[in-house]
Amino acid sequence: MKLKPLGDRVVIKKIEAEETTKSGIVLPGSAKEKPQMAEVVAIGPDVNRDDKTVLNVGDKVIFSKYSGNEVKLDGEEFTILNLSDILAVIE
Amino acid sequence: MKLKPLGDRVVIKKIEAEETTKSGIVLPGSAKEKPQMAEVVAIGPDVNRDDKTVLNVGDKVIFSKYSGNEVKLDGEEFTILNLSDILAVIE
Amino acid sequence: MKLKPLGDRVVIKKIEAEETTKSGIVLPGSAKEKPQMAEVVAIGPDVNRDDKTVLNVGDKVIFSKYSGNEVKLDGEEFTILNLSDILAVIE
Amino acid sequence: MKLKPLGDRVVIKKIEAEETTKSGIVLPGSAKEKPQMAEVVAIGPDVNRDDKTVLNVGDKVIFSKYSGNEVKLDGEEFTILNLSDILAVIE
Amino acid sequence: MKLKPLGDRVVIKKIEAEETTKSGIVLPGSAKEKPQMAEVVAIGPDVNRDDKTVLNVGDKVIFSKYSGNEVKLDGEEFTILNLSDILAVIE
Amino acid sequence: MKLKPLGDRVVIKKIEAEETTKSGIVLPGSAKEKPQMAEVVAIGPDVNRDDKTVLNVGDKVIFSKYSGNEVKLDGEEFTILNLSDILAVIE
Amino acid sequence: MKLKPLGDRVVIKKIEAEETTKSGIVLPGSAKEKPQMAEVVAIGPDVNRDDKTVLNVGDKVIFSKYSGNEVKLDGEEFTILNLSDILAVIE
Repeated sequence: MKLKPLGDRVVIKKIEAEETTKSGIVLPGSAKEKPQMAEVVAIGPDVNRDDKTVLNVGDKVIFSKYSGNEVKLDGEEFTILNLSDILAVIE
Repeated sequence: MKLKPLGDRVVIKKIEAEETTKSGIVLPGSAKEKPQMAEVVAIGPDVNRDDKTVLNVGDKVIFSKYSGNEVKLDGEEFTILNLSDILAVIE
Repeated sequence: MKLKPLGDRVVIKKIEAEETTKSGIVLPGSAKEKPQMAEVVAIGPDVNRDDKTVLNVGDKVIFSKYSGNEVKLDGEEFTILNLSDILAVIE
Repeated sequence: MKLKPLGDRVVIKKIEAEETTKSGIVLPGSAKEKPQMAEVVAIGPDVNRDDKTVLNVGDKVIFSKYSGNEVKLDGEEFTILNLSDILAVIE
Repeated sequence: MKLKPLGDRVVIKKIEAEETTKSGIVLPGSAKEKPQMAEVVAIGPDVNRDDKTVLNVGDKVIFSKYSGNEVKLDGEEFTILNLSDILAVIE
Repeated sequence: MKLKPLGDRVVIKKIEAEETTKSGIVLPGSAKEKPQMAEVVAIGPDVNRDDKTVLNVGDKVIFSKYSGNEVKLDGEEFTILNLSDILAVIE
Repeated sequence: MKLKPLGDRVVIKKIEAEETTKSGIVLPGSAKEKPQMAEVVAIGPDVNRDDKTVLNVGDKVIFSKYSGNEVKLDGEEFTILNLSDILAVIE
């Protein structure tokens, strides 16, 4: 089973980030706030309009907390949100 | 009796999903949250505009929780919602 | 006396539906929820725009609960609502 | 003194309707709900736009309850509301 | 000092109306509700657009209660509001 | 340090007005309500669009109470607000 | 890791301003309110549209309090907000 988002919606999968402080200490995921980092899993047909690439599958993104709809499929948790809830790509 | 939705509205029928976890265990419908999965039963004339097919009758879709109007017809429960409340198609 | 709705408004008359379950049992109107089914009594000049028939007088429709204004005329109850509150036609 | 409404505003005067039930019994005005019936007293310059007559002075209309601004002039009560708060004309 | 309103704003000065009932009795200003009658003191450059005179300085108008900003200048009270809060001109 | 507002924003500095009543008595600033009078300190590039001068630096203006963002720079208090929160110029 | 904002979003880093009063006394950051001053770290592709430079990386800006999303990356705190939440540039 695969999710094919409609319009300018994006399917993401939240990722538990390991955070490295400047001094090099790694904080495990459990010691942090609600994750806001995710990987793009699927994008709707209106996301990359007019031959302008805004987002690609596989991109790591920052998204707006509390936005989107959470969906469970085949035991995995996904979030479907609007492109406007994606704030930035992490490079 | 048949429902013919107006404008860009869609008639769906919620489906009780059997959820299979990665380890293969099947959770019966009653052990889960409110279903968000549905089958498209009828689509309004403005859903597939400009010869662009967005949705077909029979599609399995994910829809936005708490959206739409519930209607009972011939003893069956349907939900009528706007196309914008359909988040993704499941393939 | 006759109601002539303005713009894209529609005058409907709610109908108490007799509901037949799949097993054939008829539930009288009083055993059910607030009716959402109605018959179109009059339509405003902007309902069927651009020679596109959306609604006809006499159509049976499903409308959005809690929408519209209730009006009493000659002892009869009518509801005046916007076309956008009509969800589907029943055929 | 005369009220000349601006834009698409309409000045109406509420009328206490005598309601005749189907069996012919007349209910006096005091036995009913807040009146929603009114007579059009004056119309703004933008009401009948593009040579399309929507409303005439003297028309009996149904208006949306709780809308509009009540004004007292020369001891008489008027209501000034937007054209969009006029739901239907009674013929 | 003089107020020159911006855009489609209007400066008005509320007037305490003496109200004459049909029988000719004059009610002094203190016996009435909050005044809604005012005289236009100044109009912004966008009020009479496209050579269409909507309002003139000196016009007596009815305005929407609770709208606008009250300003004190040289000991006098003025109200600055949008043209859309002016409901009608009294002639 | 200097503030250069973006878009149609305006930087103002509130001024404590001395109010002279008609009889000539001067009320000191402390005896009055929150000041609504200000001097324009800087204007964004979109304020005077299409060669139409709406506002100049140095203008005394009346602005909408409670609007805008207060900013402290070099020990001085400024308010940054939208052009639409400027109600009138005092001449 | 680097943040690449989407659309007209801007990534900023708040700066703790040392405030010098007119008399020359320096107030340390801790003695002041929530900082509203920031440095622009990255700008989305739609910020400087139509060859019109609105903002540059490195600009010191004043932004609207309580706006934006806070993000932690590599142990550093950033804020991602819309261009419309940037009020002014400090020169």
